[in-house]
Amino acid sequence: MEGVAELTLSRYSIGVDLGGTNLRIAAYRRDSTDGSGIVESVGLPTRVSAGPDAVADDMSRAILPLLAKLGRGEEFAGLGVGTPGPLELPEGVLRNPPNLTGFDGYNLREAIAARVGVPVAIESDANLAALAEFHLGSGKTYAASSLCMLTLGTGVGNGIIIDGKVWDGNNGMGGEAGHNTIYADGEPCPCGSRGCLELYASATGVQRMAKQAFALRHGDAEPPTFTAREVAELATAGDADAAGVYARVGTALGIGLGGLVNTLNLPLYVIGGGTSAAWDLFAPRMMEELRMRSYVYRLTAPSEEESRSRSPRKTHVVRAELGSDAGILGACLLPFVDL
Amino acid sequence: MEGVAELTLSRYSIGVDLGGTNLRIAAYRRDSTDGSGIVESVGLPTRVSAGPDAVADDMSRAILPLLAKLGRGEEFAGLGVGTPGPLELPEGVLRNPPNLTGFDGYNLREAIAARVGVPVAIESDANLAALAEFHLGSGKTYAASSLCMLTLGTGVGNGIIIDGKVWDGNNGMGGEAGHNTIYADGEPCPCGSRGCLELYASATGVQRMAKQAFALRHGDAEPPTFTAREVAELATAGDADAAGVYARVGTALGIGLGGLVNTLNLPLYVIGGGTSAAWDLFAPRMMEELRMRSYVYRLTAPSEEESRSRSPRKTHVVRAELGSDAGILGACLLPFVDL
Repeated sequence: MEGVAELTLSRYSIGVDLGGTNLRIAAYRRDSTDGSGIVESVGLPTRVSAGPDAVADDMSRAILPLLAKLGRGEEFAGLGVGTPGPLELPEGVLRNPPNLTGFDGYNLREAIAARVGVPVAIESDANLAALAEFHLGSGKTYAASSLCMLTLGTGVGNGIIIDGKVWDGNNGMGGEAGHNTIYADGEPCPCGSRGCLELYASATGVQRMAKQAFALRHGDAEPPTFTAREVAELATAGDADAAGVYARVGTALGIGLGGLVNTLNLPLYVIGGGTSAAWDLFAPRMMEELRMRSYVYRLTAPSEEESRSRSPRKTHVVRAELGSDAGILGACLLPFVDL
Repeated sequence: MEGVAELTLSRYSIGVDLGGTNLRIAAYRRDSTDGSGIVESVGLPTRVSAGPDAVADDMSRAILPLLAKLGRGEEFAGLGVGTPGPLELPEGVLRNPPNLTGFDGYNLREAIAARVGVPVAIESDANLAALAEFHLGSGKTYAASSLCMLTLGTGVGNGIIIDGKVWDGNNGMGGEAGHNTIYADGEPCPCGSRGCLELYASATGVQRMAKQAFALRHGDAEPPTFTAREVAELATAGDADAAGVYARVGTALGIGLGGLVNTLNLPLYVIGGGTSAAWDLFAPRMMEELRMRSYVYRLTAPSEEESRSRSPRKTHVVRAELGSDAGILGACLLPFVDL
């Protein structure tokens, strides 16, 4: 967390990771000795159908005891909240989030601040995963000044960190490259476009492509549903169709990264999220495609030696170091960099 | 030039616009009364085949008399140079520029600095067009904090301005979105990729698409060559094929802008360059495609009233205000913001 230490003398923060299924609240100490930083953690289900006020109530019931125990004084940096997007900033208003039905127009920042009476910083979950990866994961390892992260989960999240801070853009909606077009005439996407990166590089995309491949192979109108992990296991066991699905993941990521490298020319691009566990199955194809798609990448690609030495003048593409804790860690870090 | 005035008390600069065909050198005064700012201007051919040292000699022979006349004291902000890219920064080294054959590896910044003995700031030409458009054109009109510009010429240049400065990225190669993939299986591009934006939105792209359409219509193996301007005239006169070519320009720009809006979420996107004169022929299709491709755009698109009032919280897509002087003006502005 280079650079962040100078921003504040506060020693602890509270983070909230609001998901479509689970809600997690944690207290974080920058000087914790076990390394993770998380000193207390509470998990509960997200009662989406009960509505946003009920979810905000659930949050505050978990936050208030932590505040009472750890204190609201100078040692407290603030409360950081991660939420599925789209999220409009600086207001903190949810804009028709697909994973939080009924929350459209809800000012989540104000709702929480009113309940707990402390400053609240808020960001979309993929931005916070990127923030954590920057300060505690590969960004630290590479001593990078900035990074762009793609989080391969149910969808494809994206976060861009510049000089240690989230790139919010004009409306809090910077870093939504999961919906950049990869195939102009590709599959329709729930976002309203077609051929989005998310359709080819998410767990959902892997499932769909596997289903299509299975239907093609067996002429089956109702092919079975495999999880992304099962498809990865099949591919590892030598199934050519399953391997082909992950090759398609790699191609789509390579095309998407090509555009990001050409546009941003950052030193570090990070692939995280559950589906990134299949790195060995998609990364070779991804790197080959990226090299073809982006002359900026070709001009700045590290040699093997420059990869090893993490040369700061080169463009590195790596797997995320943090696992499923990235979201909550990012929420906990946010008050240190954004309040 | 809001913000720039505070950076320096210097009153004049010298700009160089190095093109593959022409070389232009100008002196610029921030307090010039005629409004353009350019107080002296020299044009000469670029002797590419004579090699980079000869071209640097030509430059210095034009620059030195201006320096002698206007002075090297405190009133002089420095020398700004625009060049076709790719350009590696901070070094100022050309990296195999397609429009400057034989200049690969040449340190243009040092070559000029050694000849004229003053500080030299250097950027690629498309970045400088964007810089000028930010400080003197649509960026000023919209009071924008940042912008992304696409310059439609022989190729498609791109420049990103954040808080009044060029976004160079890690190696000076930020803002090369002209080579973002639009059609994954599209035409091969000289850059080594295929389906790049440049192939569908440049004057060269218009020519190629018109030739293809003409060949299809007449079954002609050797169709005539139209300039992009002639194709625009045909479209305006009611030729459906010519109109179709500009519709394809619009579609490609809409897909490309969709990715840029999703990634960057800036308040202002600007289309400039010679081919942007055909704005009325491609803009309706472009905006329709952008709206489909980017939910970030849909969430932040201005109403007609917000367009008129230039609401700073909305995403505006406009035609450039500066014409062919954008490159030289950007070169002249660069020393004020970058030295």
